[in-house]
Amino acid sequence: MEFQALIRARYSCRAYKPDPVPEEALKRVLQAAILAPTAANRQPFRLIVLRTAGREAELRRIYKADWLAQAPLVVCACGIPVETWVRMDGKNYNDVDVAIAMDHLILAAANEGLGTCWIGAFDPAAAREVLGLPEGVEPIALTPLGYPADAPRAKRRKSMDELVKWERWS
Amino acid sequence: MEFQALIRARYSCRAYKPDPVPEEALKRVLQAAILAPTAANRQPFRLIVLRTAGREAELRRIYKADWLAQAPLVVCACGIPVETWVRMDGKNYNDVDVAIAMDHLILAAANEGLGTCWIGAFDPAAAREVLGLPEGVEPIALTPLGYPADAPRAKRRKSMDELVKWERWS
Repeated sequence: MEFQALIRARYSCRAYKPDPVPEEALKRVLQAAILAPTAANRQPFRLIVLRTAGREAELRRIYKADWLAQAPLVVCACGIPVETWVRMDGKNYNDVDVAIAMDHLILAAANEGLGTCWIGAFDPAAAREVLGLPEGVEPIALTPLGYPADAPRAKRRKSMDELVKWERWS
Repeated sequence: MEFQALIRARYSCRAYKPDPVPEEALKRVLQAAILAPTAANRQPFRLIVLRTAGREAELRRIYKADWLAQAPLVVCACGIPVETWVRMDGKNYNDVDVAIAMDHLILAAANEGLGTCWIGAFDPAAAREVLGLPEGVEPIALTPLGYPADAPRAKRRKSMDELVKWERWS
């Protein structure tokens, strides 16, 4: 799909069909994430792909919404701060790197006609336990991955005047 | 451009032609950033677009590379943590939100044939001063924006086996 159409087609999908995600489509979606740029090319992210079948109760511990496990797959984007590039003032760019990779993944999914939903409001302690994350690996965002059973809504956004400034802050 | 081709076409461009960025192209690039999803739709980011002409010395204080001011425009993506959604454990999603918007902007630029380069290694104190950022507004990433005068290089990435895990961490 052409990029400008694609970003308009992407939406937060909250109902999924049980249809499986074709293996080739999944591979293209994961490859898109891998091609994402990261600070100093450190690639300090990992993607955990899990099949939801039989894990509905575990998933409900992580995020209390039935539609998460409706999708056949869930992806959790994790960060590894100690592997991440750090700015001169000590700012760690892990969240930035993980978000770029996840954004690529989510746009690539929309490009395949797959639904996704950025989820940050999960229980991080439950995610750590269910996914078996070792110390130093941080769960940053989840998304279901499957074919949509709902329809896009119009995007509500602030105006360009509000979000864009020219030359300097004021 | 088709999305899978687009993410392969995007690269860190470090030499720019002086040619101006057409106003309509710039508008589409900024609009793409505005359409980015953010946690709870808070949109806690601001984009500062600056014309480099006459500001070369200021830009060199922010980032010590001559190619930054070769491009006719520079965009600084800023975050506003106090306007940002916060996870139950206190984690602030500002860096994630800013990165998604900047990723949209950078991909939209590549879609227009424009070069960009994610820059995190700038001097944040100099950026605050030159851009006049008030307290509470954080500079997260910069990019030049202009027509490329160099050529893409092959992307070096870790393998899918290294970056993707199945079902749980191990």
